[in-house]
Amino acid sequence: MHRRLSHDGVDDEVAVEEPLEIRVDGGPIAVTMRTPGNDEELALGFLHGEGLIDGPHEAGPPPDLEANAVEVAGPLRRDPGDRNFYTSSSCGVCGKGAIEEVAVDAPLARPGPTVERELLAALPEHLRQPAFELTGGLHATGLFDPDGNALIAREDVGRHNAMDKVIGRALLDGRVPLSGLILCVSGRLAFELVQKAAVAGCPILVGVGAPTSLAVELAADRGMTLAGFARRGSVNVYTGAERVG
Amino acid sequence: MHRRLSHDGVDDEVAVEEPLEIRVDGGPIAVTMRTPGNDEELALGFLHGEGLIDGPHEAGPPPDLEANAVEVAGPLRRDPGDRNFYTSSSCGVCGKGAIEEVAVDAPLARPGPTVERELLAALPEHLRQPAFELTGGLHATGLFDPDGNALIAREDVGRHNAMDKVIGRALLDGRVPLSGLILCVSGRLAFELVQKAAVAGCPILVGVGAPTSLAVELAADRGMTLAGFARRGSVNVYTGAERVG
Repeated sequence: MHRRLSHDGVDDEVAVEEPLEIRVDGGPIAVTMRTPGNDEELALGFLHGEGLIDGPHEAGPPPDLEANAVEVAGPLRRDPGDRNFYTSSSCGVCGKGAIEEVAVDAPLARPGPTVERELLAALPEHLRQPAFELTGGLHATGLFDPDGNALIAREDVGRHNAMDKVIGRALLDGRVPLSGLILCVSGRLAFELVQKAAVAGCPILVGVGAPTSLAVELAADRGMTLAGFARRGSVNVYTGAERVG
Repeated sequence: MHRRLSHDGVDDEVAVEEPLEIRVDGGPIAVTMRTPGNDEELALGFLHGEGLIDGPHEAGPPPDLEANAVEVAGPLRRDPGDRNFYTSSSCGVCGKGAIEEVAVDAPLARPGPTVERELLAALPEHLRQPAFELTGGLHATGLFDPDGNALIAREDVGRHNAMDKVIGRALLDGRVPLSGLILCVSGRLAFELVQKAAVAGCPILVGVGAPTSLAVELAADRGMTLAGFARRGSVNVYTGAERVG
């Protein structure tokens, strides 16, 4: 989603960013800055990544039809007040603590699939990014099968939102856990993206950019394959190399 | 800060990412994923961007010397429980509401300075990024004067953290508000970065990447100069073109 504006005497397009309030049974849970569209998917994917739901829930516009808000039907798996170690002190604050925290909710990745290294390196080229072409301002996430077929692709100003939308769509389609599938992101690989993929049960995560230390540690801990710098026919495989042929 | 690891049979460097708990007078306020180093600056810049402090405060290791935690001396300007519209529903959730919320804390940018377009376009090249060269995994923010001299530069796995560290350092140096200065970031320009720059009183923000719609709206509302796509000798000026000569 993009909007036309003028600068330097020319017309141009920018990616739209607006806040979204996520509500569960009428109560606000979080506000995220996102590109409007697929808001139900975003809400469900976000709640799944937080360990608050483990399957599809009803989602849609709120009863008061307020703009930039989405309503999800409960119940949740636990109290959302205790939901997020990024905004709460209830988990350990060292890297080890963070990994132990997520390990509670994230399954160990199952063996397989195997993917060809050349195909893995080329996946980002298959990420459809129509709005990025116009604005240069969007992140993309795609869900692929091991033959490189794109199953779901979403764009957003926020990299976390793009992955939440894909996982939310997969939840609605009954595809979670994402066993045997590959998530591909257009940017860098930080801890939170690996966490979301791990909680969704995805065995392989590949990105165009660099991983962080904690992203590599978490992927190793969960038995996932983590690959980065997928560009120009090359890719680095940091963990789980047994899945790359 | 970076760490050596092996992948694909070669040694490589990755950017370090670890959680940091920010405490005020012993009470936890937030946990952020960051690259270790300059933690006091990060804490002060974060609290300033949230409108919780308006000048330098004492900051350092916590009394229990716990790793990955930083202690800031209060008092705060207001109750942090009400602190953040990204995790609270206390503000409006539409774009207009978000801008009205930040406008409470962010001053209107003062007139001036004027900066040459060529110099603005070239600023990202002057962003020192020693660790990025090694890892490819870090964001950078720099504070410059209108002649292009770098005053402060910081790197982090999180783009918000890099700016928080710069603003925290500026607070400690007595440079806030950042009147007459320029902030330059290595990535895209979303709402939150413009918000942090606005609250710090910086009149000019330039980035290598694209702005979002709400970033442009906020910069216009606060009278700031917002410029993007600063690369290869070119730059787009979205708002406040009167400061670009």
